[in-house]
Amino acid sequence: MGKGAETRQAILDRAVGLASAVGLEGLTIGRLAEEMELSKSGLFAHFRSKEALQVQTLEAAGAQFVEAVVKPALAVPRGEPRLRALFERWLAWDLARPGGCVFVAASIELDDQPGPARDVLVRLQKDWLDFLAGAVRGAVAERHFRKSVDPEQFAFQVYGTMLVSHHSSRLLRDAKARERARRAFDGLVLAARVPGSSSTGSRHANAQ
Amino acid sequence: MGKGAETRQAILDRAVGLASAVGLEGLTIGRLAEEMELSKSGLFAHFRSKEALQVQTLEAAGAQFVEAVVKPALAVPRGEPRLRALFERWLAWDLARPGGCVFVAASIELDDQPGPARDVLVRLQKDWLDFLAGAVRGAVAERHFRKSVDPEQFAFQVYGTMLVSHHSSRLLRDAKARERARRAFDGLVLAARVPGSSSTGSRHANAQ
Repeated sequence: MGKGAETRQAILDRAVGLASAVGLEGLTIGRLAEEMELSKSGLFAHFRSKEALQVQTLEAAGAQFVEAVVKPALAVPRGEPRLRALFERWLAWDLARPGGCVFVAASIELDDQPGPARDVLVRLQKDWLDFLAGAVRGAVAERHFRKSVDPEQFAFQVYGTMLVSHHSSRLLRDAKARERARRAFDGLVLAARVPGSSSTGSRHANAQ
Repeated sequence: MGKGAETRQAILDRAVGLASAVGLEGLTIGRLAEEMELSKSGLFAHFRSKEALQVQTLEAAGAQFVEAVVKPALAVPRGEPRLRALFERWLAWDLARPGGCVFVAASIELDDQPGPARDVLVRLQKDWLDFLAGAVRGAVAERHFRKSVDPEQFAFQVYGTMLVSHHSSRLLRDAKARERARRAFDGLVLAARVPGSSSTGSRHANAQ
């Protein structure tokens, strides 16, 4: 990575944090320049427009998500253990950041605003739902889950679990948000398991 | 209701619609005046500040929600039928409006913004979760649901189902959002039912 690319990456990392806290609308080149103690004209040279900054911030957040959530889960055995690892890291991604998940906030901001930023967000969200559904398929292939489990429906419900944890923890400041999220996830897993299978045992053996 | 109160109510109804579409931050006295073809000074006389307008808009939305979702469900027999009526009307409240549920958008906007608007929103959301949990208790009392069902956990998961339907329908434009939401709700109900109870029959007999 050259010096220019490094600077750009550092700016985008900060932009993701700022967007989590103040939203994509609040993420202006002026504000970001102030945060980083850089000149506004210097930042303009990198991004040229607020829209370009939004698009690249979302892409950078997507790359961070892959590093923080997806990659580590790929090191965990396929099936229920990997699905559980994805869920746990996803929860941590949302609940451990001061501003919460940038994608949740951006989803509300952009749902009625057609344009390149919305397009990138929709692509990232669909990719993630597809990946989650793929992990559910893995659990079926490993015979942890029944063949009749609908992977897209399962992914939809896990997504709902994450959204309500976000709501419960960030708006309602409910200390039980994480515990409730885990119980909801466990309920989904239990309903999907092959009756009498050894997936519980394999989960405990594999879980970190 | 006097003429002044009627005008105020008409303004607030419009304000709820506008807040659903553009968010509470976008709901300014100037913009509302423009929408209603009223003078800005006339609206200032009613609300005095943007914050007061936000607070009263949230209260008005809460009153609309009670009329649209809560009251009609109270006419349905207690237990699983009432819980289902609440869920169906809640879905309709969110999915049938052009801007989606104003509370979902406001939850993201206000989660990091302490103040009277956030306080009102938190109170309304907690009231609603309590009411939902109460409806689950009703289903336990009617012996439709098992005694071991945790009403707060059930309400939390139904809330997640609504949030993901909002996300799926408004951001991803997924035509299956409503169907997936119903399947998720049915899964929760099925897991909560007293095995071999007649609640299925009673549901069909009572459902509109």
